[in-house]
Amino acid sequence: MTKQELFNNIKKKKSFLCVGLDTDITKIPKHLLNSEDPVFEFNKQIIDATKDYCVSFKPNMAFYETQGAAGWISLEKTINYINQTCSDIFTIADAKRGDIGNTSKMYATAFLEKLNFDSITVAPYMGEDSVKPFLEYKNKWVILLALTSNPGATDFQLTEMHSPFSQMDSFGEKGARGIDANAPLYQQVLSKSKSWSTPDNMMYVVGATKAEMLSDIRKIVPEHFLLVPGVGAQGGSLSEVAKYGMNKQCGLLVNSSRGIIYASAGEDFAEKAKAEAMILQKEMQVLLEKYL
Amino acid sequence: MTKQELFNNIKKKKSFLCVGLDTDITKIPKHLLNSEDPVFEFNKQIIDATKDYCVSFKPNMAFYETQGAAGWISLEKTINYINQTCSDIFTIADAKRGDIGNTSKMYATAFLEKLNFDSITVAPYMGEDSVKPFLEYKNKWVILLALTSNPGATDFQLTEMHSPFSQMDSFGEKGARGIDANAPLYQQVLSKSKSWSTPDNMMYVVGATKAEMLSDIRKIVPEHFLLVPGVGAQGGSLSEVAKYGMNKQCGLLVNSSRGIIYASAGEDFAEKAKAEAMILQKEMQVLLEKYL
Repeated sequence: MTKQELFNNIKKKKSFLCVGLDTDITKIPKHLLNSEDPVFEFNKQIIDATKDYCVSFKPNMAFYETQGAAGWISLEKTINYINQTCSDIFTIADAKRGDIGNTSKMYATAFLEKLNFDSITVAPYMGEDSVKPFLEYKNKWVILLALTSNPGATDFQLTEMHSPFSQMDSFGEKGARGIDANAPLYQQVLSKSKSWSTPDNMMYVVGATKAEMLSDIRKIVPEHFLLVPGVGAQGGSLSEVAKYGMNKQCGLLVNSSRGIIYASAGEDFAEKAKAEAMILQKEMQVLLEKYL
Repeated sequence: MTKQELFNNIKKKKSFLCVGLDTDITKIPKHLLNSEDPVFEFNKQIIDATKDYCVSFKPNMAFYETQGAAGWISLEKTINYINQTCSDIFTIADAKRGDIGNTSKMYATAFLEKLNFDSITVAPYMGEDSVKPFLEYKNKWVILLALTSNPGATDFQLTEMHSPFSQMDSFGEKGARGIDANAPLYQQVLSKSKSWSTPDNMMYVVGATKAEMLSDIRKIVPEHFLLVPGVGAQGGSLSEVAKYGMNKQCGLLVNSSRGIIYASAGEDFAEKAKAEAMILQKEMQVLLEKYL
């Protein structure tokens, strides 16, 4: 999917919602456990119920891998079902992969080619050659971790580093790259990685528990889409995210997982998920009208 | 496996070799492609041929995931075969995972519990709560990425950071933590993460292309085991690694993947793999006698 197509879907659906398919077999309604593939059956009903109110689905790989080969089959069925029934959905393999070049190439084949996801989340720690293999597919995307929403974000991402750019820009042009010398690691990740690609095939994960930081982030990556987890169960305010993070093409995908998919543990789970997705879509519609 | 058991195996086998099972179906000998599960058949023969000369096997998950559910089944058969036939082998799931706490917990279940690996490689970018769930299993290990062997290691791992420890140790005791203010990120990862656990359940990935850096690393983590990739196809000298990196319990696992498993593309692949593993084991025996 291209950036323009994603933006068109956002305008059409009046939503920038991503529904996280973090499907835990121990949490899905009991009546589904008799079906042939309970995880896929759950996902299928969630997809059908929420697809008109969101622009993206994001299965997290951990929830499938924990079921072994059976989990991988549920994942394959899920992505195939989305690709067959929803032409206006941006799919995200939330995998947080990253390895040396030839190995990242294998992961890229697995997720962007064979499973045919539109995008994959990638961890930046191993640098450029660990990310590049994911960028070699036309109209496919890397979503690079920048600032995550968990407490551990303070351990390294928020630690100030000596900016290598401050040495390179020795004639007072530090500001041109949008970051200060001694910027925190997550800002260095943004600054450096944006030269590896363009806003047409790179997005960033930015945790919503730190919405005010979106101002700083927008100085570095004004045009990129940001995937914002952590609205809902992890806390974080949608209106703050929109205020500080929205750009001319929206530039935001805001994820909710547990708040939607586990809205009810009963037979009405899909109906309740739909209701929760609608509530978020309505809020997003107001914010899109306000800021776009 | 405990640290003492691993050290006992190293002494018994006179080897600290880890064989990387990066099994690429496009690179294995053609005559295996008719078997029911070519990847497992290849691994089984490599395991049988090399298990007396190594102390560890390390399948890289990317090579299995790229084959979808079938790849996951090959992986399950491989780890089960190792666990059933080699009681003196330390198994590593080279997965480079890491996510928010409840998601890392899912990965931990997948690799340390269900597949029953002894250890898993984990990426540090998301910090403490993304690593902790992997540390909750008795006699299981986290192998945290510190300094990797790929070119991209220079992008962030080697960038100097303002050390938070330099502020905490304000009375001239900076040296007590073994790092300077403004240490590179990989040293911050070592310094901070070693407080999350002990040398009995944490190891570090340290790239062998930078063997001289092992001196600095040993000042920070004198007692931890280090997993050293990049001897062989990725370059790197075994004797340099031993000189700078070995400690009283050896403290090293040195990996070779392609140099061993693809030593021959013919029907003699297992025999040639055995020969390559033996060559490395003999070199290691000399180094163990020299430094232990």
